[in-house]
Amino acid sequence: MPTRRVFLTAAAGVPLAAKAMTRAELPTPALLLDLDAFNANVERMAGFLKKQGRAFRPHAKTHKCPEIARRLIEAGAVGACAAKISEAEALAGGGVTGLLLTSAMVGRWRIERAVRLARRHPETIFSVDDAANARDLNDAAGAARLKLNLAIDLLVGNRTGIEPGERAAELARLIVKLPNLKLAGLQSYSGNSSHVIGFEERRRFSRAAMARAVETRQRIEKSGIACPLVTGGSTGTYNIDSEIDGITEIQPGSFMFMDLDYNRIGGAGGPVYRDFQNALTVLTTVISKPAKDNAIVDGGFKAFSTDKPFPPEAKGLTGVSYAWAGDEHGKLTAAGGGPVPVELGDRVEFIVPHCDPTVNLYDFIQVMKGDAVVAVWPITARGRSQ
Amino acid sequence: MPTRRVFLTAAAGVPLAAKAMTRAELPTPALLLDLDAFNANVERMAGFLKKQGRAFRPHAKTHKCPEIARRLIEAGAVGACAAKISEAEALAGGGVTGLLLTSAMVGRWRIERAVRLARRHPETIFSVDDAANARDLNDAAGAARLKLNLAIDLLVGNRTGIEPGERAAELARLIVKLPNLKLAGLQSYSGNSSHVIGFEERRRFSRAAMARAVETRQRIEKSGIACPLVTGGSTGTYNIDSEIDGITEIQPGSFMFMDLDYNRIGGAGGPVYRDFQNALTVLTTVISKPAKDNAIVDGGFKAFSTDKPFPPEAKGLTGVSYAWAGDEHGKLTAAGGGPVPVELGDRVEFIVPHCDPTVNLYDFIQVMKGDAVVAVWPITARGRSQ
Repeated sequence: MPTRRVFLTAAAGVPLAAKAMTRAELPTPALLLDLDAFNANVERMAGFLKKQGRAFRPHAKTHKCPEIARRLIEAGAVGACAAKISEAEALAGGGVTGLLLTSAMVGRWRIERAVRLARRHPETIFSVDDAANARDLNDAAGAARLKLNLAIDLLVGNRTGIEPGERAAELARLIVKLPNLKLAGLQSYSGNSSHVIGFEERRRFSRAAMARAVETRQRIEKSGIACPLVTGGSTGTYNIDSEIDGITEIQPGSFMFMDLDYNRIGGAGGPVYRDFQNALTVLTTVISKPAKDNAIVDGGFKAFSTDKPFPPEAKGLTGVSYAWAGDEHGKLTAAGGGPVPVELGDRVEFIVPHCDPTVNLYDFIQVMKGDAVVAVWPITARGRSQ
Repeated sequence: MPTRRVFLTAAAGVPLAAKAMTRAELPTPALLLDLDAFNANVERMAGFLKKQGRAFRPHAKTHKCPEIARRLIEAGAVGACAAKISEAEALAGGGVTGLLLTSAMVGRWRIERAVRLARRHPETIFSVDDAANARDLNDAAGAARLKLNLAIDLLVGNRTGIEPGERAAELARLIVKLPNLKLAGLQSYSGNSSHVIGFEERRRFSRAAMARAVETRQRIEKSGIACPLVTGGSTGTYNIDSEIDGITEIQPGSFMFMDLDYNRIGGAGGPVYRDFQNALTVLTTVISKPAKDNAIVDGGFKAFSTDKPFPPEAKGLTGVSYAWAGDEHGKLTAAGGGPVPVELGDRVEFIVPHCDPTVNLYDFIQVMKGDAVVAVWPITARGRSQ
């Protein structure tokens, strides 16, 4: 596995992390990736979907890192999903092809940037769930003398999209009539399926949601319109949705890193979801021991995302709990209120509650082989939420 | 008020925000600062503390922006507090002087960087709460042939620090004995005081906490050791702690931006804290209207910090509630379940639950005068949590 090392200096306005070559030397808090676990996760997902005969377009909103997107393509992915146009631009700038934008391009500035991206990367697919927006995209594409590939975003979850069935079919008919648009297919993501606890329950939930996408595809094709793509699925449903006839492509993200939230949903084999390994951690340092019964580490709200109702879990420190102690700090306590088995300067590593928004807090991923930092990957699309 | 405009391009790897000159043109989500409200907040705090005869060293962990730190110094601040060494480096690199590090410098890499900063900025004050760490700092300072100014971090809140009283006095005696250290005074931040609901209750709580700092200062000075500095206080206690004899300096942060959390603590004049104006907002766009009773905006976990138990509040849209809908999206609903009064493409602006970690999600602050973007300030220390 080739690795690259990016040398960074304080003078260039970036952290000195790259100078530290081992876990013990890294400035903290730091975002760590266990390379072997990451590679195993990627191989497992890519291999599984290949066997299932489904395309694999992993979601880059999880990693925001062109290096990772390129590695996923090397492993068999057809491209990368991106949540936002600015994220897609960062990926394209890093040599990533086969982009699929999973949110609608609403707003003049966003349409202009979509057209600019399509000029350089004509294979890019954009999502749409509204007729007026489709007309705006058609006009902008016409002015730029190009054609835009569109996927109709279906409301099969609890977020964005047009009602599946006749309303979606009507939008498909409009798209094929407009001269500067091409219908790529259906974007069919059901976010609320992904986190249903229990494999069987999750399967029932996701099959019901995705059935509406498959039915919509049939309805569109019956009217003589080609609808080659139906993309959906997630880390929670990759082995559910890829069993459904008519779903052509799976777009999981978290599987490569994993987090406590996905561990909790339960797997096909038991109550803890263990299909993929926890490859992502945050490394902290104990910077204060105000009393015997607690210790303060240097990571708080700015080191971990806080959108889940549970805190980070210390790796290899059983019986020790983390609680947020503000923007910059976390407090460790021991079960039963006894002494916490850490000393000032000790390093404590945490599995994160939710990987995507945690990655979005860091500029770099420290890539680890055992205790050695073997590469530093820039999270180029960090903060690109536009 | 002079403003500067930074021109940015997609090619340079940064958002195109600076090309947009009005609120209607800004790519979203965007972090907005109302310049008039910000200036009024700064003048009010600086003026109040000047009248109280206390030094003003606002905390830069809130804004992470050298431009803002410089403006605060122009308004009368003696410098800036920084939570972490990497944050302090970014401020120093932006011409900010009078830095006070409010967390301990634990770890070899951190001590090395502290010494490097002290070489360029000998006035910098570092916090310490442990004798062994003080000895390490002394050794590193000696090797670099310089002296480090230390403030003893007191445990007057619920986070870091050494027990006030005799244990702290003992550390003071050690510091003055070590040849390469100088005692600047006491760092006395009580984070749990700041958020006590109700002004009178908060005053009682903060006075009890700060009394321990004042007593510790007296104890140290009785033994013949000068202890000129006692710094503490916050946006919640600036008008409480600045009334206490022996507190020399106040280090508030949130006052310049304000957020929903501070609005909720109650002020001296009533149940809503209105000493400072809500100057900071996040601008979003409605990108999907999946049904009449809800609308989806393009800001979620990556656009707002989620560490408070309440969501962002839409500005000027009464009866409309925001709920997080994942990493990239938020869902608007109307009270009573009726139609939401927004259309696709509409812009919705939000007051944020918690300003500091929200600012830490953005690379730039869009500085507004009415609807015009009059400047773009880089949040240079964003992500500098090390």
